[in-house]
Amino acid sequence: MRLATLRIDESGTTVAVRVDGDAVTRLDGFDDVGAVLRAGALEQVSSLGGRQEALDETKLAPVVVAPQKVVCVGLNYRNHILEMGRELPEHPTLFTKYPESLIGPRDDIQLPPESDAVDWEGELALVVGKTVRRATPEQAAEAIAGYSVLNDVTMRDWQYRTPMWFQGKAWENSTPIGPVFVTPEEIPAGAMMTTRVDDEIVQQTPIDDLVFDSAALISYISTIFTLNPGDVIATGTPGGVGHARTPQRYLTAGQTLSTAIDGIGELVNVAVPERI
Amino acid sequence: MRLATLRIDESGTTVAVRVDGDAVTRLDGFDDVGAVLRAGALEQVSSLGGRQEALDETKLAPVVVAPQKVVCVGLNYRNHILEMGRELPEHPTLFTKYPESLIGPRDDIQLPPESDAVDWEGELALVVGKTVRRATPEQAAEAIAGYSVLNDVTMRDWQYRTPMWFQGKAWENSTPIGPVFVTPEEIPAGAMMTTRVDDEIVQQTPIDDLVFDSAALISYISTIFTLNPGDVIATGTPGGVGHARTPQRYLTAGQTLSTAIDGIGELVNVAVPERI
Repeated sequence: MRLATLRIDESGTTVAVRVDGDAVTRLDGFDDVGAVLRAGALEQVSSLGGRQEALDETKLAPVVVAPQKVVCVGLNYRNHILEMGRELPEHPTLFTKYPESLIGPRDDIQLPPESDAVDWEGELALVVGKTVRRATPEQAAEAIAGYSVLNDVTMRDWQYRTPMWFQGKAWENSTPIGPVFVTPEEIPAGAMMTTRVDDEIVQQTPIDDLVFDSAALISYISTIFTLNPGDVIATGTPGGVGHARTPQRYLTAGQTLSTAIDGIGELVNVAVPERI
Repeated sequence: MRLATLRIDESGTTVAVRVDGDAVTRLDGFDDVGAVLRAGALEQVSSLGGRQEALDETKLAPVVVAPQKVVCVGLNYRNHILEMGRELPEHPTLFTKYPESLIGPRDDIQLPPESDAVDWEGELALVVGKTVRRATPEQAAEAIAGYSVLNDVTMRDWQYRTPMWFQGKAWENSTPIGPVFVTPEEIPAGAMMTTRVDDEIVQQTPIDDLVFDSAALISYISTIFTLNPGDVIATGTPGGVGHARTPQRYLTAGQTLSTAIDGIGELVNVAVPERI
């Protein structure tokens, strides 16, 4: 099943929709995919009838508009860690973003005037479906609601100002998520994630190459604090970011950042100078 | 003016109160101090009449029960940085906690079975009173609503598992805040912060020794994202934490952690083994 969140008026009101091919069915009463998950209504909405309308991609909002938690994972791609000559980590590296960072899958990425080093990090976004604390591996597997695509756009100059990365990760209106939420069976074996800047592929990796997989992440994170339906875990980025290139490269105004995962879909976001 | 948040029934319902000496006046309609701030009602509640009752300290909840944001600042005490032989930082180091970490000023600190290194970090908590983004120094000064006391209790073994401190900082029910919220004029010049483990003083520092003061922090943080009324900024801890001692020391079950700031009051929290 594929769900999305649509903006339905100028004031930012949203509604969850089920996506069937190019058509959508409004899930009235659910403001976003997060509301469907918090209500435990995934099963219910899978068979809900109603009037179908064409999907207007320009109206796509973040699949979960305001997650209580957006937990991000650091180095988590085996091939990238090994190619960098590092040892595989024993524990996942965790940091956070606030919901204010999230933008829709067709929204502009705001390039703040305070940064000269805005970089891409294509990631698989794991969406939590159950309330869990200290989840066993089995409970963690059951708490996986589904997936989306996220680009953990990062202001590298601010990320490395201090020992903690958070201030380079938390800029408002920087982090696209979407275009849809999919339940796990929608993702084919061997699914690839591909990040493009304009037409150039800059990251391409099979998403099953994670050191810590979805269940491992939910189990680990929920040891520390409760995860709730609609919470988002950004599972880490593979090699190919601009900062690690020679010469280093960053997003410039007018470039289009595209982030695609097989079986989910593609984020397409234009980088624009933020007006302040 | 001094405000607090009281639990008024077993289900966790809370109400904001004004504290006048040993008596409190309920501020009906405001669930917590955060609600007073979000309503812009500080001035209004300062003169509100009503029936006074005795303050029951055992009923004190976190002053702001569920801040949208709890932003924490790393090394920020000049004397501590200089005594460690480090240079003063150019930028504040930032990380986060979730509201689920917060406990009331008389609640037990939960020692999770997963950590053997639970440490203290007495801190001045700055509470935001206005919505600000990219606040100028003047706007930042006006956005200071007041202060409270916080202990950024930290699981050192988890803090240092990976490069990011967050996972040692975000344990549920670990971080006391309170006992009251005070407006700035309640804090005397030269106010000291004192952290005790049982009867032993382990940290003692004047709170005006911050590298980045309240207005500087609001200005810096709001460059990155919006701060809103009720948001909490934990302004950093001075020297004297247990991890930096020889031999290293941590909280053990039954110890009482007290954290006091002149003009605000004292947190008194017993460390207990978490039952899971």
